[in-house]
Amino acid sequence: MRIDAVDLFYARMPIVEDIGDGSQDALLVRVTAGGIVGWGECEASPLTSIAAFVAPMSHTACKPVGYNLLGQTIDSAQDIARLSDLILFNSMDLLQAPHTWSGVEMALWDLLGKMYETPVWRLLGFDRVHPKRAYASTLFGQVPKETFDLAQNIRNQGFMAAKFGWGGFGTVSAAEDRLHLVAAREGLGSDATLLVDAGQIWGNDVDAAALRLDALNEVRAAWLEEPFIGSGFAAYMALSQKQPKVPLAGGEASHSFEMACHLIDYGGVAFIQIDCGRIGGIAPAKKVADYARQKGVAYVNHTFTSHLALAASLQPYAGYAEFDICEYPVRPKQLALDITRNWLTPDDDGLIALPEAPGLGIEVAPETLAPYLQEVVVSVGGETLFRSPVL
Amino acid sequence: MRIDAVDLFYARMPIVEDIGDGSQDALLVRVTAGGIVGWGECEASPLTSIAAFVAPMSHTACKPVGYNLLGQTIDSAQDIARLSDLILFNSMDLLQAPHTWSGVEMALWDLLGKMYETPVWRLLGFDRVHPKRAYASTLFGQVPKETFDLAQNIRNQGFMAAKFGWGGFGTVSAAEDRLHLVAAREGLGSDATLLVDAGQIWGNDVDAAALRLDALNEVRAAWLEEPFIGSGFAAYMALSQKQPKVPLAGGEASHSFEMACHLIDYGGVAFIQIDCGRIGGIAPAKKVADYARQKGVAYVNHTFTSHLALAASLQPYAGYAEFDICEYPVRPKQLALDITRNWLTPDDDGLIALPEAPGLGIEVAPETLAPYLQEVVVSVGGETLFRSPVL
Repeated sequence: MRIDAVDLFYARMPIVEDIGDGSQDALLVRVTAGGIVGWGECEASPLTSIAAFVAPMSHTACKPVGYNLLGQTIDSAQDIARLSDLILFNSMDLLQAPHTWSGVEMALWDLLGKMYETPVWRLLGFDRVHPKRAYASTLFGQVPKETFDLAQNIRNQGFMAAKFGWGGFGTVSAAEDRLHLVAAREGLGSDATLLVDAGQIWGNDVDAAALRLDALNEVRAAWLEEPFIGSGFAAYMALSQKQPKVPLAGGEASHSFEMACHLIDYGGVAFIQIDCGRIGGIAPAKKVADYARQKGVAYVNHTFTSHLALAASLQPYAGYAEFDICEYPVRPKQLALDITRNWLTPDDDGLIALPEAPGLGIEVAPETLAPYLQEVVVSVGGETLFRSPVL
Repeated sequence: MRIDAVDLFYARMPIVEDIGDGSQDALLVRVTAGGIVGWGECEASPLTSIAAFVAPMSHTACKPVGYNLLGQTIDSAQDIARLSDLILFNSMDLLQAPHTWSGVEMALWDLLGKMYETPVWRLLGFDRVHPKRAYASTLFGQVPKETFDLAQNIRNQGFMAAKFGWGGFGTVSAAEDRLHLVAAREGLGSDATLLVDAGQIWGNDVDAAALRLDALNEVRAAWLEEPFIGSGFAAYMALSQKQPKVPLAGGEASHSFEMACHLIDYGGVAFIQIDCGRIGGIAPAKKVADYARQKGVAYVNHTFTSHLALAASLQPYAGYAEFDICEYPVRPKQLALDITRNWLTPDDDGLIALPEAPGLGIEVAPETLAPYLQEVVVSVGGETLFRSPVL
């Protein structure tokens, strides 16, 4: 079927705060073909990703993402692969392109699933879904007491795993960081899984990160996430070999299949975390999951936005039983909840399973989404290249 | 001195053709501080890079490039390093940010040089410049005869080195590719340096690339550039070990210092090519040049636009005698020439040397640039975030 329209919608909270919370805005993608509608979501900087969709061509290898979709058809997974290859080549010099394409690719899978009335995970070759233990993903508190309260609250909600990140972690002394870690462990209880996210705070500084290993070991952190910049492979490898051993996690910055493989091969991570809204969508993420299996590394989703993005992020490893946890944003902004009409909620055992519903199994809710929409207008040389479409 | 203004100017040819010619548009950056003006240039997709400068913040680590410059001061090279670190952290999730920042960074070096009345290469620590042999950089002809004529013409202009790239190379049969290679060699003469640019045409397909090694060897190509995608390290390494040995070149896609190091360490390239308009400006490029020296790899600029970008691209290795060639766009579009009032031209021996003039040593020419300027307007939620400034 011919792709009739690809529409981009920029939604955001009335106030976007300077905190490490990625649920404060969203760029939603609606693809229409043969009367069927698919939805996807790009991660971060909606305006920049819109520009990458409509920008005038600079030269052969710097075409905007939208250019590659003109007159194209979507009838099978092979079509998605074909379009991905087109983008890779035609937009190779447009750095933002993978982020924009990610949302479109997700929407194409959603559309394809609806076309064949089957869930995306079946289209990816899985026979069944293996439920994942949801880890509650949240920010550190401002003070250890607040971190303790957050952890206790998460446990009381039934979560058996939680991740704390950002806040001031890593910017204060190792002793102060330790107080937050101890508070988190105490609040969660000794039998829960505790994960820690440093948010690239140490750049490439292995020694600064190593100063926290004792405390991480003391509270039995199951991983230390993103101690370094996304491409700091050497720093990752060096830290992974220090004592006490703390498993490293990373990969959310990957904007290609290869980048994720490199973090596995050269960075020595134990967990590879993939954001389908950045890496180019669901198919390259599935390739990473397959590669991780070969290499004995655990695959985990990275998601800090809506349940549409969450559902997409679970598809690539839905059928692999050995990859048994998933990130679950537990305190998202209201926007992230209002984007959809249904949500993925943990069962009594704290497990999440993708539905059998066609596509991504999540329904976008125009009525609750509408108030957040931003009217975007972009013009070059007097020509309007983008104007927000009607929802 | 306080940074008073950072202005972005989008210029383009009246018609942008679907050819591999990066000189068809430009995003120029003007930074003003204390009455001094510095200029820089971002590589590719001007509109997307403008968006990355003005986009609303998504969260702590997804701030637009412009946000990081508010109220900042520029008095020394340390200030440029400090601002680079800010961008790296505050804009980590804004994929396009390094491309936007590249032009601003260049402009800050230009400004700093003018402030201290010294060329940028001296600020980088070099005592003198070592002239580089300019290699004429051009596209393959449509047919071998055209390639021959182009090569002969380049030689007649006095160039002793030339690079041919893109066109249909790699998309036709290896036999047809060979005819272009032989034509280029014959047109150039047996004593000139012949370089070949495949423009990522083989993706990750080592076998397809290997089919061309015999012909490349036959015409004594000094390098084969970008056979694969920028992050295709394993493919690079595999091809670098095949017989006959043809030195590989790559790296223009690097948007961080680390990416360039990885291509050296994991890709086995013999030449590392850096575009200062992409990697984050002049300072990270200088770090790559230093790293390449340690590793016994040759550093070369990547430039296919104006002489402002060319001058910037020569600074990072200006003082290293052993890195003795440079890319020189020999058939740029008129825009690329009209951006500046002076140009870097090869001497009778085909050598290019950076001038002693302060800053980058290149003067922007508002009078000839003006006709190419595009009025850009970007608004979100009724608020105008960008409107092209007055030149």
